[in-house]
Amino acid sequence: MSGASAIWLDGTPASALPLPDRGLEFGDGLFETLLLRAGQPLYLGLHLQRLQIGLARLRFPECLARIEQYLQQAAAATAERGWPWAVLRLTVTRGAGPRGYAPPQQVRPRVLLRTMKLQSDPLEMAAPASLALADIRYATQPALAGLKHLNRLEQVLAAAQAAAAGADEALMLDQAGQVVSVASGNIFALRDGVLYTPPLHACGIAGTRRRLIMQQLAPACGLQVREEAVTVDQFAQCEEAFYSNSLVGLRPIGRCRERTWHSHAACQALFQRYREALP
Amino acid sequence: MSGASAIWLDGTPASALPLPDRGLEFGDGLFETLLLRAGQPLYLGLHLQRLQIGLARLRFPECLARIEQYLQQAAAATAERGWPWAVLRLTVTRGAGPRGYAPPQQVRPRVLLRTMKLQSDPLEMAAPASLALADIRYATQPALAGLKHLNRLEQVLAAAQAAAAGADEALMLDQAGQVVSVASGNIFALRDGVLYTPPLHACGIAGTRRRLIMQQLAPACGLQVREEAVTVDQFAQCEEAFYSNSLVGLRPIGRCRERTWHSHAACQALFQRYREALP
Repeated sequence: MSGASAIWLDGTPASALPLPDRGLEFGDGLFETLLLRAGQPLYLGLHLQRLQIGLARLRFPECLARIEQYLQQAAAATAERGWPWAVLRLTVTRGAGPRGYAPPQQVRPRVLLRTMKLQSDPLEMAAPASLALADIRYATQPALAGLKHLNRLEQVLAAAQAAAAGADEALMLDQAGQVVSVASGNIFALRDGVLYTPPLHACGIAGTRRRLIMQQLAPACGLQVREEAVTVDQFAQCEEAFYSNSLVGLRPIGRCRERTWHSHAACQALFQRYREALP
Repeated sequence: MSGASAIWLDGTPASALPLPDRGLEFGDGLFETLLLRAGQPLYLGLHLQRLQIGLARLRFPECLARIEQYLQQAAAATAERGWPWAVLRLTVTRGAGPRGYAPPQQVRPRVLLRTMKLQSDPLEMAAPASLALADIRYATQPALAGLKHLNRLEQVLAAAQAAAAGADEALMLDQAGQVVSVASGNIFALRDGVLYTPPLHACGIAGTRRRLIMQQLAPACGLQVREEAVTVDQFAQCEEAFYSNSLVGLRPIGRCRERTWHSHAACQALFQRYREALP
């Protein structure tokens, strides 16, 4: 365990995952990435709500109370280490089991926590991001859409392509060629004073900050949000664009292929609200 | 480690996976399930060919020689333990990495091997299987179709539903409602003397035994195979059906919802060839 990270398994410091584990074998599990401030997980309620939906959809036995207990303990430890800001990755797997796809009759989910000291300052809006268009598209899977499950090869390949192209992020489309998100966050496009963000019925992850923007930040800024399909052409024609996730909050998009954006006024206004509302 | 299984990590006996690992975090990896006879992996070439395609598609660095070396070593150990038949699960992950979807610049894939004594007798054709129709359908993902990657939540949920319904296997469809496979194997339907098996351009796994049947066993039995879409209705109307995977070889299907099949003559003839050809 290095000085800038720590790992817990079911509430106990650990450095390895006992094998076999269905999370590794099939991606049979879920995760969350939380921002911690002075040992406090931010927007914990939004994360736990999404997690609970996922646990139910995957038919995991009840384990949320245990997860929250371990999470608070690991979060508090980051404050004891003197980390002003930290990231916590929570991974819940269906645990051990015999060979084969069918889960065992008795499931004991495993709760894995990894905390890392955050190097960036979440109170500063990040510089405008450059986007590469990902070749791989999200699969159409309504039964799992919105969840933050462990089957994430599409985002891995998209992120790898963006990194190889020297871009900050990957713009990802669905099978029909409509915009869905960037690899690590939800996307918003401003047009005629309205913020558009793609619906997530068929693919993509229902981000906690996406919800925060839609329900709190945008109304507070007098901005209307519409959950509506966005084509690549519509995206290129928007007046302003940004993406959101738990670590950056909101980050403006400065470039996507040939298109550049120089105005980030709406993102700046929303970020200001986001920053003020941070617990 | 129990007496009926063993685990190796990068060629060394192990009981746990060092964390972090991208295989667990994102399902960033591939697997194979091999049948071993007296310590010899059967149809190793077919497995390694599929694995190599997957490693290239996921842009893993070259590691096949290392994989084969570890695999032969673990396979041989099953003979030393006196297991006449064994199963070997090979898992290759992209290994450790910093937080986030993008793979690190320097990737060192991890090779995980788990061997288990096989309780069933692969030389006996299994009893006809009962199938439940899975609610969850395969996602449309041409970029990953055919590969045996670690993103397998769809099959997990399908297999769980089948087990809960008391069925042996789950019949899985694609987003358009066409038959693709069972959760743990490829599917074949006989009609008018022709064997039909669904194409795997958009989803599903390109099974080693599927290929064996198409290229060797069916021609040897004078059966024509056509890779063609099969609707649920067409499947229900077929004269005979079976599925294939590395462990059962070929297994007849006896029931799917209201439909029952009593003739398994083609499957029996193919199984006989399969059995005779087993190295």
